[in-house]
Amino acid sequence: MLDFTFNIPTELYFGRDQELEVGRILSKHGAKKILIIYGKGSVIKSGLLAKVKTALEEENITYLELSGVEPNPDVSKVKEGLALIRKDPVDFILTIGGGSVIDTGKLISTAYFYDGDPYDISLKKVEATNRIPLGVILTISAAGSEMSTSSVISNSETLTKTGYNSPYNRPVFAIENPELTFSVSPYQTAVGVVDILAHTFERYFNPSSEFELSDGFAEGLMRKVIAAGKVAVEDPTNYEARATLMLASSLSHNGLTSIGKNSYMPVHQFEHIISGYYPNVAHGAGLAVMIPAWMEYYRKIDPKKFTAFAKNVFDYDSGDDLDNGRYATITLKSYFKSLGMPISLKELGIGALDLKRFAARLTNDGKKKLPHHIKPVDNQVAYQIFELALEE
Amino acid sequence: MLDFTFNIPTELYFGRDQELEVGRILSKHGAKKILIIYGKGSVIKSGLLAKVKTALEEENITYLELSGVEPNPDVSKVKEGLALIRKDPVDFILTIGGGSVIDTGKLISTAYFYDGDPYDISLKKVEATNRIPLGVILTISAAGSEMSTSSVISNSETLTKTGYNSPYNRPVFAIENPELTFSVSPYQTAVGVVDILAHTFERYFNPSSEFELSDGFAEGLMRKVIAAGKVAVEDPTNYEARATLMLASSLSHNGLTSIGKNSYMPVHQFEHIISGYYPNVAHGAGLAVMIPAWMEYYRKIDPKKFTAFAKNVFDYDSGDDLDNGRYATITLKSYFKSLGMPISLKELGIGALDLKRFAARLTNDGKKKLPHHIKPVDNQVAYQIFELALEE
Repeated sequence: MLDFTFNIPTELYFGRDQELEVGRILSKHGAKKILIIYGKGSVIKSGLLAKVKTALEEENITYLELSGVEPNPDVSKVKEGLALIRKDPVDFILTIGGGSVIDTGKLISTAYFYDGDPYDISLKKVEATNRIPLGVILTISAAGSEMSTSSVISNSETLTKTGYNSPYNRPVFAIENPELTFSVSPYQTAVGVVDILAHTFERYFNPSSEFELSDGFAEGLMRKVIAAGKVAVEDPTNYEARATLMLASSLSHNGLTSIGKNSYMPVHQFEHIISGYYPNVAHGAGLAVMIPAWMEYYRKIDPKKFTAFAKNVFDYDSGDDLDNGRYATITLKSYFKSLGMPISLKELGIGALDLKRFAARLTNDGKKKLPHHIKPVDNQVAYQIFELALEE
Repeated sequence: MLDFTFNIPTELYFGRDQELEVGRILSKHGAKKILIIYGKGSVIKSGLLAKVKTALEEENITYLELSGVEPNPDVSKVKEGLALIRKDPVDFILTIGGGSVIDTGKLISTAYFYDGDPYDISLKKVEATNRIPLGVILTISAAGSEMSTSSVISNSETLTKTGYNSPYNRPVFAIENPELTFSVSPYQTAVGVVDILAHTFERYFNPSSEFELSDGFAEGLMRKVIAAGKVAVEDPTNYEARATLMLASSLSHNGLTSIGKNSYMPVHQFEHIISGYYPNVAHGAGLAVMIPAWMEYYRKIDPKKFTAFAKNVFDYDSGDDLDNGRYATITLKSYFKSLGMPISLKELGIGALDLKRFAARLTNDGKKKLPHHIKPVDNQVAYQIFELALEE
């Protein structure tokens, strides 16, 4: 894969050593003083942060730092960042990391212009109306937040995890060097592969015409990610596999695979209940459990698209139109297992006792129905889907 | 397909009645006085031009008009447009039509800032350094010029047809209403389908890794276009098929299916020789002849990607690894035929006597080799490929 610049409108700088350009890219966008956000120190150990600081200093860009963002990032870290830049304002935010770091930056960047509780924006009580521009140096291929309009933040006080979309969330640029992901562990790589597939998969199963171009893109993307994911887990320094996952991460969630389609993502809402209660569960692991369960429920009602999925994505043609789409679930579970992913709630340490409160939380105690074109999710459907996830 | 806005960075306004927004879109981009460019009057007959003028007047945008652009557009029309706006300057160019109209507009928009012969830019003797911003209302799904950086213009004095690429060629916006293509004839629809496939096909056959994401997109796009193309030829008012072709036209040539790949397009250079000599040959018809010939030559030397093409795009799995990729040519020729396209030079009225001068023109009398990763095209290879195109 050659290096390239792409614009959607996030500018994508992709390829070896691209992180060394961060100073020039920020300067081009007029940044003078920025807030750098990162996680738990791997960017220090790897030397990436030092390289970034050198690049900033070469362009006379000064910076504040907010570190220690955790997976399933909490709104308390957003508040910490806001306090920092309210005292000492910045004109740009640079996030170095994956979805957790980027999403923390996104909520800081919009909540800066809102005086109330920043979580009001996550809960869609108020809309974002402005933002501090934000850029990304990506270090893990997973969430797709580097090109997306969404941000997902947890609230440990209320055990809530929720996402919101806003055009103000779209990063100005993303810098992607696949080599920066060589050190991502096989488990975290697999978690990322599931997340990328999930973004694509959810869009794919929304209603579409038989000629839907975005479905063609989605099938192509899933095929390539499935192949590259297996290789990256087994051979972490395979540049081509890492590059495919990194680009797919961005293109799986920027709207391309749902262009001209609804981009509603029901399975993510199921997963957010799980990692909302249990923040130790990686988002991708929760998805690996919930996707097949969701699929198993809906394929029995309307198998057509599930049969196409097995054929066009996994090359699995049963030659049997009456298979009721069951190979979709079988092939997908088998793939997730081959990556070392859990495929049941039990493997996540979650038992039958949780199902009722999960379903109640998802449907707001039965008062809310989640829309779905095959069958909306009421309290009973939610319970049945969580139940299908219980055991392998 | 739902309506949407997309940015790559061309803003894409897609869906029913979107052309009525043209005044507001131009105003948003600061246009006050524009040059409208169109073809031979079908936009008058259909009422589209009148609608556009009303939309402009509502926003107090004034306009000049340049009409009569022909297929395989000639540089003389570019000069006519330049004379017009040099006397009476404009701040925006609005092209209403397909590739010929858009490409004429593009060369006017960049040559405005160059005092010499505008064709110098097409011949890459000088580089474009600026442009008058340009927008598109698309009326035929084919060339992909509405989102691309390329412009192809003919010169009837020298029997030359050549394309150049420049970031200044990228339209600011494209307005795409699939209903505007309902009236495109089956033949012109088929010509467009071949053109869309050719843009994708050429990128696909450039070198790539086994996980190449853009190849996944290319395969997905070709599958959907092949299905939609057949339907649009037979059922011209099928909205979904027309919408797929329209979106695919734009996404086939904006760089998405070559992201991270070389975007070299060798077959187009063969075709430009044909329609350079014979401007009555539609570009897509010339491509329908030259693609299978080109394929037939290269698949014998290195069949691997051609076998994958037959399988992943046409679902044709011979089950025989030793097929030497011949099903790629067979399936593609059969598809082009089913659209009513010519698949030989003879059908275009071109005989064996032309082959020698075609090959000489392509290779600059044997002094130039066209690069190709399997085998570069010298005078002899060029001749052999034209010869393969002679008969079905």
